[in-house]
Amino acid sequence: MVKIAIIGFGVVGSGVYEVLRKNASDVTRNAGTEIDIKYILDIRDFSSHPEANLFVNDVNIIADDDEVSIVVETMGGLEPANTFSRLMLSKGKTVITSNKELVATFGDELFELAKENGCSYYYEASVGGGIPIIRPLKNCLAANRIDSVAGILNGTTNYILTRMFCANASFEDALCEAQEKGYAEKDPTADVDGFDTGKKISILSSMINGEKINHADVHTEGIRKITLADTEFASKFGYSIKLIGSCKRIGEKFAVVVAPMLVENTSPLAGVDDVFNGIMVSGNMLGDAMFYGRGAGKLPTASAVCADVIDAAKNVGAPFVAPWKKSSKNVLVDYEDMEYAMYVCFKTADKAALMKELASKFDGELQIANTDEHVAFITPKDKIKSIKEKLSGINAEIAGSLLVLE
Amino acid sequence: MVKIAIIGFGVVGSGVYEVLRKNASDVTRNAGTEIDIKYILDIRDFSSHPEANLFVNDVNIIADDDEVSIVVETMGGLEPANTFSRLMLSKGKTVITSNKELVATFGDELFELAKENGCSYYYEASVGGGIPIIRPLKNCLAANRIDSVAGILNGTTNYILTRMFCANASFEDALCEAQEKGYAEKDPTADVDGFDTGKKISILSSMINGEKINHADVHTEGIRKITLADTEFASKFGYSIKLIGSCKRIGEKFAVVVAPMLVENTSPLAGVDDVFNGIMVSGNMLGDAMFYGRGAGKLPTASAVCADVIDAAKNVGAPFVAPWKKSSKNVLVDYEDMEYAMYVCFKTADKAALMKELASKFDGELQIANTDEHVAFITPKDKIKSIKEKLSGINAEIAGSLLVLE
Repeated sequence: MVKIAIIGFGVVGSGVYEVLRKNASDVTRNAGTEIDIKYILDIRDFSSHPEANLFVNDVNIIADDDEVSIVVETMGGLEPANTFSRLMLSKGKTVITSNKELVATFGDELFELAKENGCSYYYEASVGGGIPIIRPLKNCLAANRIDSVAGILNGTTNYILTRMFCANASFEDALCEAQEKGYAEKDPTADVDGFDTGKKISILSSMINGEKINHADVHTEGIRKITLADTEFASKFGYSIKLIGSCKRIGEKFAVVVAPMLVENTSPLAGVDDVFNGIMVSGNMLGDAMFYGRGAGKLPTASAVCADVIDAAKNVGAPFVAPWKKSSKNVLVDYEDMEYAMYVCFKTADKAALMKELASKFDGELQIANTDEHVAFITPKDKIKSIKEKLSGINAEIAGSLLVLE
Repeated sequence: MVKIAIIGFGVVGSGVYEVLRKNASDVTRNAGTEIDIKYILDIRDFSSHPEANLFVNDVNIIADDDEVSIVVETMGGLEPANTFSRLMLSKGKTVITSNKELVATFGDELFELAKENGCSYYYEASVGGGIPIIRPLKNCLAANRIDSVAGILNGTTNYILTRMFCANASFEDALCEAQEKGYAEKDPTADVDGFDTGKKISILSSMINGEKINHADVHTEGIRKITLADTEFASKFGYSIKLIGSCKRIGEKFAVVVAPMLVENTSPLAGVDDVFNGIMVSGNMLGDAMFYGRGAGKLPTASAVCADVIDAAKNVGAPFVAPWKKSSKNVLVDYEDMEYAMYVCFKTADKAALMKELASKFDGELQIANTDEHVAFITPKDKIKSIKEKLSGINAEIAGSLLVLE
């Protein structure tokens, strides 16, 4: 029998409790041993909970109990999750987390601490919610050099963009709808401005790089500027618009970016709609593989946490290999130096003149579509700064621009 | 350093050699040790191969060499792969296979033999080629009760169906095209008649059941009977047609079937085209998750084999848990008792009479579409035998029928 504690009994933490109770026989069979919840730490009052006896509000009770070998951290946020996680790891207890902010910010230090103390730090649920992505990247694709990862990593923004595409809702209306359904928070900044996706892609990028890639250094754009003109043009050109976290290997460096992008309809990512997430991984031997599923939600995320608990219970005492270390050099390609095709939407009175000007500035085949008010086109692939330079001299108002996912 | 042997130097075996050579530094880093190929067994002449010194043609050289702890079996077929695998396992060597036929037929016995001899039997590459599916099912989803798996598990038939859908090619023309491109064999029976899919879904079903589900007992249909009338009607109704291997948990039993099915366009499986595979897994906590990628091919399949090699090298001596045992009871639901909606295509001179007759026999809302020659409709969900009974009394020629994936 393995005794565990859950610290933080919010949405995910109570989900972990529910999964372990409801699927107890599957969990025991797969872990090869019984998983016993000895403590639940939460400062709120759970005295009317059916298992009220499990609840404690002093973290030291758990830290000082040698019987507890695994601690599930589902508090979220940096503090006190960081302090509590360090305390548990320093006592040799394996910590399992769903906390993307903590993993993205202090993962390298927590892995190091786990290694020093002969325990492990697991984080499957920090990216992609219920979708198995961390372990496939680590184990199943271990024989590949991973060349790129591109993912729809945030369900809230994907729901909003799906509504804009399928129901012609404006960004504001789609956001309200997402808030009414509980998919978006009252303050939607973390989701719609791309910061949530930034943390997740920096975790995946750090794994591929083997050294930390700091989310604060990743060029991050959100979806607020997307208009219905953009969705209409994207449809005409044969694309969908998705908020993409992308990491591409360029020689010894990595181009990491979070931005809404045009995604070709033939890509499996284009069909990832509503609150679902999809992550496309490209390996030098495997080619493309995609992982799809519920990227958030109580039980899907809890089931990923529980998969880690089972893995940890099976491998007590196994040596821990840190998935990434502290950063030793800057491996990020500057945003302006990244190479993309770009969609640009213009507002102009003289369309014929604009189209002539575009054709004179951009080599290769331009895809051009227009409505009554706007002209939009897709440039050939080039460095972002070169495209911007060419655009800056053009005599027309730019109503919007988006990168095109390769 | 871990020393390995490759037995069978065909497409996949030579791919394993290539992956281990090309990605040597990634493989060593991920395995935590160097992987050294000591022998390659093949009865053909490889004297001009750059590493001709590795080749042997006597299996006992490998079996008797205590330095070799891992053997990769990429021979395919039942014999001599079965005899050779048993020999290696009986000597305590871990065997890693891409051989779906052997795993589906004798997996239970080979797992048992591995356990008795303190080694392991790995089979990630036997289903889904390069797509990580076996390990996610086993580890990542360990906290779920898996309720269903539905997969496009054969690239050849998916290519043929994609061509029929997108290019209006007949089955015969699409098959010829697949043969010209090297996607289909000269004798395409194993693929187009569903037997390949049958072995793969029986492997996945056995994992979920924990006891063997014999592929010979699974109701298996291929795609030869699909016509362009069917693809046209499917499009009209908002479906694609895919060869599906499906396993659904029904209480204590399992409904396992291989058949071409109508797949709703909103399902991620509908967008899995060409030679790609996609596997949808539904867990009671996770909801739906899909795994997508190249289901065959030299390097994708080899990269899955190598992921197993790395895992085995990291876990030498770890206890092996058999993923399934011998069958102790019949858990299969009879095909006729399975519940599906059914698409039926009729050829008739009197459409009005037929539609009246259909409406009188089938409750609920019937979806009906018709062309100059045919009428097609989709029945409500019911037991297959009940639907067939109702259809048998109808006064019109049935030109085709297909199950509808739920």
